[in-house]
Amino acid sequence: MFSYTVMPGFSDSDALGHINNTRLPVWFENARDPIFKIFTPEYNLKVWPLILARITVDFQQQIYLDAEIEVKTTMMKIGNSSFTIKQQAWQNGQCAATGEATMVHFDYQTKKTIRISDEIREQLEQHFEH
Amino acid sequence: MFSYTVMPGFSDSDALGHINNTRLPVWFENARDPIFKIFTPEYNLKVWPLILARITVDFQQQIYLDAEIEVKTTMMKIGNSSFTIKQQAWQNGQCAATGEATMVHFDYQTKKTIRISDEIREQLEQHFEH
Amino acid sequence: MFSYTVMPGFSDSDALGHINNTRLPVWFENARDPIFKIFTPEYNLKVWPLILARITVDFQQQIYLDAEIEVKTTMMKIGNSSFTIKQQAWQNGQCAATGEATMVHFDYQTKKTIRISDEIREQLEQHFEH
Amino acid sequence: MFSYTVMPGFSDSDALGHINNTRLPVWFENARDPIFKIFTPEYNLKVWPLILARITVDFQQQIYLDAEIEVKTTMMKIGNSSFTIKQQAWQNGQCAATGEATMVHFDYQTKKTIRISDEIREQLEQHFEH
Repeated sequence: MFSYTVMPGFSDSDALGHINNTRLPVWFENARDPIFKIFTPEYNLKVWPLILARITVDFQQQIYLDAEIEVKTTMMKIGNSSFTIKQQAWQNGQCAATGEATMVHFDYQTKKTIRISDEIREQLEQHFEH
Repeated sequence: MFSYTVMPGFSDSDALGHINNTRLPVWFENARDPIFKIFTPEYNLKVWPLILARITVDFQQQIYLDAEIEVKTTMMKIGNSSFTIKQQAWQNGQCAATGEATMVHFDYQTKKTIRISDEIREQLEQHFEH
Repeated sequence: MFSYTVMPGFSDSDALGHINNTRLPVWFENARDPIFKIFTPEYNLKVWPLILARITVDFQQQIYLDAEIEVKTTMMKIGNSSFTIKQQAWQNGQCAATGEATMVHFDYQTKKTIRISDEIREQLEQHFEH
Repeated sequence: MFSYTVMPGFSDSDALGHINNTRLPVWFENARDPIFKIFTPEYNLKVWPLILARITVDFQQQIYLDAEIEVKTTMMKIGNSSFTIKQQAWQNGQCAATGEATMVHFDYQTKKTIRISDEIREQLEQHFEH
């Protein structure tokens, strides 16, 4: 399980007085940073190894200002070249939003998918939910 | 069908040289504005009538700077108190991303769902895809 | 004078019920797009010709949802390698925010400033406020 | 001195490969959170006590992904009803951006400024730069 913590700010809130829904995909992406580093430990933007195929977010509770949010990320499924993770945003002891994200190991030059190596697969597998 | 057009700016792009995926949920939300107005023509933030239950986005093509994006929104399903729409982002003649969004007619005071009136239902039904 | 129009969306607002102040620098940047194109008509991200040195924003009126914002951009001062513009955001007939932005004609490879050519200077000069 | 730390994410970067300038005002606002709490310890959004009058940002160094940013905030000047702070964003031991922000103690109902109380003034004064 990967953990990412963020304190929401005013620009994350909206006129309904809660956190705007569009901030969840941002925090979920930020929470994927340690996964990016499994694929590119040197964070090489010129040969970036992943492309995002799909995201979902289910909004279960409203999120508010003035309390930290923790995003918990676990592995759901690992295929030949793609994998899907589950991401949950918690605030004040409640799971407020649950998302999935499917990423593809990808070569931006050739626009082709790349098989996930056994070495990377082993690292990803350590983050399956127990 | 509702149409919303946006020209991406630098802050919508990211270090991979394309538009960051997290901007799609923002533009999809902006594109829902005419639907908000069906429920609250006076745009009453104090008695806001809708809450977002779920979004999905499938990323089909990379989106780039310097070309307009059109978001096309159509109705998919209308239930008793909720409804689901389909949203597509087009750039340069290609559908680059497709999303769904489920919204619930909702009373923020009582935290209860509200039945969609026949009058509103009729207006929503005019936007089913043909 | 350059004109850029934007309709604010929910994610631009904040919990105080108005548009969040941090959106002004974004819209002001978007409004600079035609200036970018004077320097790089082909919008060449690999040899980008400008770097931002300084921005200011004075907030004069609160900005709200549900009414278009027009950003008017005029030239204030043109130096050897830098220039400063004035940007105003108007909503409902009122100037709500006024900013300045100083940009430098810049070579990102050598990290050196570049003299503004006479040809570009003439184009910029057409946008001085009358 | 108030300190706020943030790890930039992909959506903070732009197509030039660095962090987009418009993120600085966001992080500077987030870094003002402890100042907001001096004025409203209970974070009361319904009687919010401050309005932003002016911001400036000087961009001194490019900021990049994959290294934390610390925003250091100090008091510059305290008037009858307004005060100005200095904010610096540091990354990798360098000051990358310096801003000022002027806030006004304000009553959103009557749209009038409010005198800063001695109690609050004393708390603000503890954050002058030494």
